[in-house]
This record gives sequence, C-alpha cells and structure tokens, in this order.
Amino acid sequence: MRILNTIDDGFSQAFKEVLNRGEVDASDVIPKVLEILRSVRDKKTQAILQQVSQFDNWEPKTFQDLEISQDMCKKAYERLDKQKKEALHQAYERIYAFHSKQKQKSWMDFEANGNILGQKVTPLDRAGLYIPGGRAFYPSSLLMNAIPAIVAGVKEIVVCSPVPYNQPNELFLAGLYLCNITKAYKVGGASAVGMMAYGLEDFKKVDVITGPGNIFVAMAKKLVFGEVMIDMIAGPSEILIIADKNANANFIANDLLSQAEHDEMASSILLTDDKNLIVEVQKQIDKILPTLPRYQIAKKSIEDRGLMILCRDLKECIALSNELAPEHLELLITNPLAYLADIKHCGAIFIGTYAPEAIGDYVAGPNHTLPTGGSAKFFSPLGVEHFMKKSSIIYCTKDGFEEIAESAQILANIEGLEAHRNSIEVRRSKE
Amino acid sequence: MRILNTIDDGFSQAFKEVLNRGEVDASDVIPKVLEILRSVRDKKTQAILQQVSQFDNWEPKTFQDLEISQDMCKKAYERLDKQKKEALHQAYERIYAFHSKQKQKSWMDFEANGNILGQKVTPLDRAGLYIPGGRAFYPSSLLMNAIPAIVAGVKEIVVCSPVPYNQPNELFLAGLYLCNITKAYKVGGASAVGMMAYGLEDFKKVDVITGPGNIFVAMAKKLVFGEVMIDMIAGPSEILIIADKNANANFIANDLLSQAEHDEMASSILLTDDKNLIVEVQKQIDKILPTLPRYQIAKKSIEDRGLMILCRDLKECIALSNELAPEHLELLITNPLAYLADIKHCGAIFIGTYAPEAIGDYVAGPNHTLPTGGSAKFFSPLGVEHFMKKSSIIYCTKDGFEEIAESAQILANIEGLEAHRNSIEVRRSKE
Repeated sequence: MRILNTIDDGFSQAFKEVLNRGEVDASDVIPKVLEILRSVRDKKTQAILQQVSQFDNWEPKTFQDLEISQDMCKKAYERLDKQKKEALHQAYERIYAFHSKQKQKSWMDFEANGNILGQKVTPLDRAGLYIPGGRAFYPSSLLMNAIPAIVAGVKEIVVCSPVPYNQPNELFLAGLYLCNITKAYKVGGASAVGMMAYGLEDFKKVDVITGPGNIFVAMAKKLVFGEVMIDMIAGPSEILIIADKNANANFIANDLLSQAEHDEMASSILLTDDKNLIVEVQKQIDKILPTLPRYQIAKKSIEDRGLMILCRDLKECIALSNELAPEHLELLITNPLAYLADIKHCGAIFIGTYAPEAIGDYVAGPNHTLPTGGSAKFFSPLGVEHFMKKSSIIYCTKDGFEEIAESAQILANIEGLEAHRNSIEVRRSKE
Repeated sequence: MRILNTIDDGFSQAFKEVLNRGEVDASDVIPKVLEILRSVRDKKTQAILQQVSQFDNWEPKTFQDLEISQDMCKKAYERLDKQKKEALHQAYERIYAFHSKQKQKSWMDFEANGNILGQKVTPLDRAGLYIPGGRAFYPSSLLMNAIPAIVAGVKEIVVCSPVPYNQPNELFLAGLYLCNITKAYKVGGASAVGMMAYGLEDFKKVDVITGPGNIFVAMAKKLVFGEVMIDMIAGPSEILIIADKNANANFIANDLLSQAEHDEMASSILLTDDKNLIVEVQKQIDKILPTLPRYQIAKKSIEDRGLMILCRDLKECIALSNELAPEHLELLITNPLAYLADIKHCGAIFIGTYAPEAIGDYVAGPNHTLPTGGSAKFFSPLGVEHFMKKSSIIYCTKDGFEEIAESAQILANIEGLEAHRNSIEVRRSKE
C-alpha cells in the first residue's frame, strides 16, 4: 500500500493525483451513448428490443417480453429462507424509518401586511430506478433506491435492470416483491436510461432516474439531465478513514479491504497522525488480503489506489479529507465531536469503533448511494428530496401588494419590460 | 391568439403539441458546445481569451483583463439614483428574508439502543453564477442567483457574464456591489460554463453553476453536470393562468403579455371555464399589444405560442395545468384554496388578484429562476438547497451495533462480499 507523509517534498504533487481520482475520460464513450440514446428516442421499442438482444444475449420479440412477471417475484420471495427474509425486512424497516425523517414539509409564512409566501412540496409522479444486474446484482441497491421514492409518495415506480440470457436473479425478483414494485423491465445500460428519459410507445417517460451503473449508464444519465431529474453521476466507490493511535488496526484493515473488494478502481485511504498505526494496518492487510474470496480485485485496488498518509495532526487529517471529499468517511478517533463541525465534504460520516462502513451499506438506515470521486463537495446522498420537488406560493393582499408594487415597477422599468410594469400598474389604479 | 376547446375532437392532438413545447433539438448545438468545453479544459486561459475575442468583440490579453474591478462596481452603485437604489434594496431584503426561511438545518435522531443517525447540512465552498449580459442584462437575475448562495453561506461566489465590446452594463456593476460579489469575470456562453466547471490556471473550479442562458449555456450546463452541480436546464419563459368568470380580463391580458414580451418563444396560456372571458381577454390583448415597446416580440409570441383553452370546469383546468407543469401559474379564481392541494406541478403559484407574476419576478421574495418547458414536474425553483449539500451521520454504540450486525452480515453474505462481512465480524468478537 502506498504511503505518503505530508511533510515530504513531493506530497502536494502526489496528493493532487489522488484529488483527481474522479476524473474520467469519457470522450470515447459519449458518442456511443449519444448514438444509443438517439436510437431509443427515434425508434423507441424497436431500438430497445434490438439493444437488449445485442447486449444481453437473448431475443425479446415484443415490449411485453421485457416485463418481469409479478408472479415470478412473489415466488422468488417465498423461496427465500427465513434468515435472509428477516435480514431484508430489518434493512427495509430501518431504511424506511431513517428516510421518513428526511421528508420535507410544505410551509407558509405570513407577513404583517397579509401576504402569504411559502413552498409546496410535492412527490414526483413517476420515478425510474436503474439497478445494475447480472452477477453484480445487490439487493441492497434496490432497497436504497426504492425506499426513498416510496417514502416521498411517488405513485409510479419503475425499475430497469439488465438480465443477461433472460435469467433473472432470484434476489432481484424477491427484492421487487419486498418493495412492492410491480413494474420492472429487463433492460440495462444506456438503453434503459434512454427508455426511462424519453418513453416508448407503451412506456411513459419518468420524471427522475436514480441508481448506480457503469460508465455508459453514468454518461447516459448526464446526457438526459434536464429531460428528467438525475440523482448524481457515480464513479468507483471509496473509503477514507481518519484514525488516531487508539484506533484498532485490525478494524481499520478490514474496513479498507471491504472497500477494496468492490472494484479494482475503488480507493481505500487512511489518514493518521500515528506512524505506528500505519505499520500495524499494513501488517493486518497483508494478513487478511490473501484470505479474501475477492482477493484479485481487492489486491489490485489496494496496490493501485490504496493509500496511507501520515499527517502532522488530526486537524491536518480533516483538512485533507475535506479536499478529497470522500464517499465514506470513518472517524476512528478518541474525541470525534471535537472535529465534527470541521468536516465539510463527504457522503457519509461513520463515527466510532462500532460504525464500520459495511453497517451503513445495509442496515443502519441512511442511504448507501453516495457521491464519489470528490463530488461530495456538491452532491448529497440519495434521499427523499430526489423524489420530491417544490413550487413557490405567492399570495398578496391589496395592502401587501401596494407595499411592494412601486419597487417592482421601478425594476421592470430598469429592465425595459413595459408589459411587466403595466401588469402591476393596472392593479394599482382605483377602480 | 389560438383558442382550443377541450370538448373538440382534435383537442388531444393539439394539446399534445403544447405539452411538447419544451422539446429542443440540440443535435446541432451539442458538438459545438463539446468543442468549446474541450478547448477550455485543455487550453484553459488561452482558450477563454480566444473565445471572448471571438464572441464578444474585444481583445483581452490576459486573465486579469477579464476581471471586473471592484472600484468600477462601487462607482456604478454610487451613480444609481435614489429611487432605483431603494427598489433594489427592497428587492434584496425581501428575497433574502424569503430564502432564509428555506435554509435546512442539520439534524440528529437518537435510537433507544444509543445509535445516533442524522444529516449534516453544509454550504458549498464555491458557487459560479452565470448571468446573461449585454442588452438583455437583468439586475433581478443577479439578485435571484446571488442571494440564495449568500443565505446558504457559500464562502466564494463568482459571477460570469458576457460583456460585448468590453462595455459593462452599469446596472450589472451596481448589482455586483449591492450583492458584495468581488469576483466577476467578463466571460459568457459555453466558455464561461467550461471555465467554472474545469477551472483555469488562475481560477479554481466551482462546485455549482446556476443561472439562465441561451441554448449554448443550457447545453454546456447539461454536459458539465457531474463535474459540478447544476440548478436546472432552463428554456423559454411561460405563464399559465387559470381564471373563472369573476376574474378581471384586463389583468389577465396584461399578465399574458408580460410573459409574451420576454421572448418570441415564450408561452402565454389561459385556461378557463368561462367562454365569455376568452372573448374579453382577446379584446384586451388586441387593445394593449400595439402599445407595447416590445410589440414585435410580444406579437410573435402571442401569435405562435399564445393559447386559450375553454375547459368543462375548473377541475379540468387544474388537470391540464398539472400536465403542462408551467413555470408560472396564476390562480385567478374565486376560491383558490379549494384547488391548492390538487396543484401538483408548476414552478410558482401566484394566488389571487394582487399577485401578478411580475411581482414575483422582482420583489415578492421567492426566486424567479423557475423550471420551464414542463420540467416543473421534477425541478424546483432555484433556492438555498442548490448551494448546500448533505452528509449522512452514523454513530453506533456496541449495543446498537449488535442489534443490526447479524442482518448486515447476512446481507453481505448474500452479496458475496466477504470483506464486508469480516469488517462486521471482527467487531463482534469478544476481545
């Protein structure tokens, strides 16, 4: 694992490369994605059928062939053993409870002059969840995308997921049943994003598309932003752990590896003020790594993108962490509250010995769909807010109107908009 | 002005065309914008200087030439007459007061087992406001973009605006001073979006880009979504008025025209259950239209995109309005509260006789940057939320951890992520 020291000469340059970890050269991908999207928009169902047969190795003949039957979902759910069912239900309930607390209320504010100003918060009509499929299907992804939409009150939730060889994953089917999603389609990649953004003959466009995916899905989401709402553009997963000398090196090593096993491109980073901890963590990693079933992936991730940085003090750790804006941030330090206010940018903060990232991936309650690659500087975790939107409310009394009419007319005049000025003037005239 | 009746045979088809008013064929524009963005990303300041000289008819030699001097802003503000100053200040204060009420707080929730879950809300570090320039400069646009960022607590706010012939608009300068914005640059179009999204040698990239603009700006914003946060993709402005027989035809005509004078592509729509009102509004429009300074623009807008629809009843008016999801919705009906719950999709709702849209454009307080072209189905008005983001907070006690650890391990196991399972297991072992 690579080790840096902030007092070393080359540190700034080396750190800059880590900062740029989110940079993706998508110049090859964009034209291909544009072509797929254009084809879906113009040829609709015909394009989707052709693309599914091209990418997923089976031959759907009609749009109905792409629908997942509710009966199959129910049966898959019933086949689940009790232990798995209970784990999924506990996850569902805790995620539901947390997201319920996020839900914003409409509000009104009353002015002395009688004017009423406010904001009405309304669920979106129709949400499209993209869930990666095949061998990489994770039931937790389905729960984390579906539950905020359910809490928001979205009436129609649809799911798209690629199903290679037309062999749906049992857990995917069971998860659909658990989330009570009755509209799911065996369509993946940029095709699915296009289908949800533009609609087909028998499929109405959605209002928001959320969910993780590969570079094709990410670029397609970027390109349809504006036609629909998009949650975020996600890249490889990452963890940053800030630990002091009291932290448990074994826990840290396990947490770093839990990130590394996701993806060769995943980043696992430790920041500490304790030189000895770095040595200990390295030892633990060397011990655990060879025992992992996903050894090859984790090894490549740790070698290429793993990093331990020795800092002058915890304050410096926090400052570097804010610059990196990691997806997951673990605080394994003696007095985390002393630093919490200074933590500005990250997707989620895991505090203390008993909050490993993996607990947040599944059952803690907050969403595991988090901004990556530094985009935690501006994106928020997936949440109920992505499935709701606001409308301003403006009501004026005659008195309240008169109090502000003059200024509005002056400003309309400044901007050379006479009809704007008129629409105020006519209401001021005595009738 | 075009008139439709919902009971007519051709209505559905005609209405569908109105629904699709937001559709833009940007296929010609996207390659040009991609080229501009690529050039900015690769050649940085050199590209910006070249593009400004190409589009704005002056020859900046260095990046410093693009900076707007604070001294000029102060002087422009001082030159403003008292009346204009007061109007701008009243607008500023009311917009500030409204947006202050939007600001979300961080929150925590405590579980019986001692776990703490919550959300930390943090301002973005750096916001980039795009403000259209030249003759079309509107001081209200600057206020509406800057104030939510100020309320959010954004530390660095920068503004980009095209300045043809290097002749800055006096009101633009004064507005910058009023908003205490010290970093403003004479750069417009897709170049400005690229500069703010990628950064230059002497200019740090921003975290969010907001603000209106032409199709080049809109497409550039779409293409950099993900590198930065974007507020929305805006198109031509639009108003929809729902009125019953008690509404004032003169007020309605003025309000429709206030929208039409913006842009030939603007849409002004009246929905009513009163046949006579349509006749009266048409008369008023015919009378007022020729008197407007922006007659040519308003006339073309009203002729091409103006529309009055006679509906069976107000319920039908609301249903059609929800489908159209207009930017501005005026409710000029006897009992607006009876319909408010049913209004699902629009940027802002103006209620009653004394809330013309123009009052919301300037001084009511809510933002005038609103989703257009039907995107109110999923976008919200520009607000403080666009300049803040969230991080989840997860703290577990040992007891709280044990309560959920088993499920997390089962789910990690289901997903084949052994290192995830381990990172929980090691914490469960007795030490």
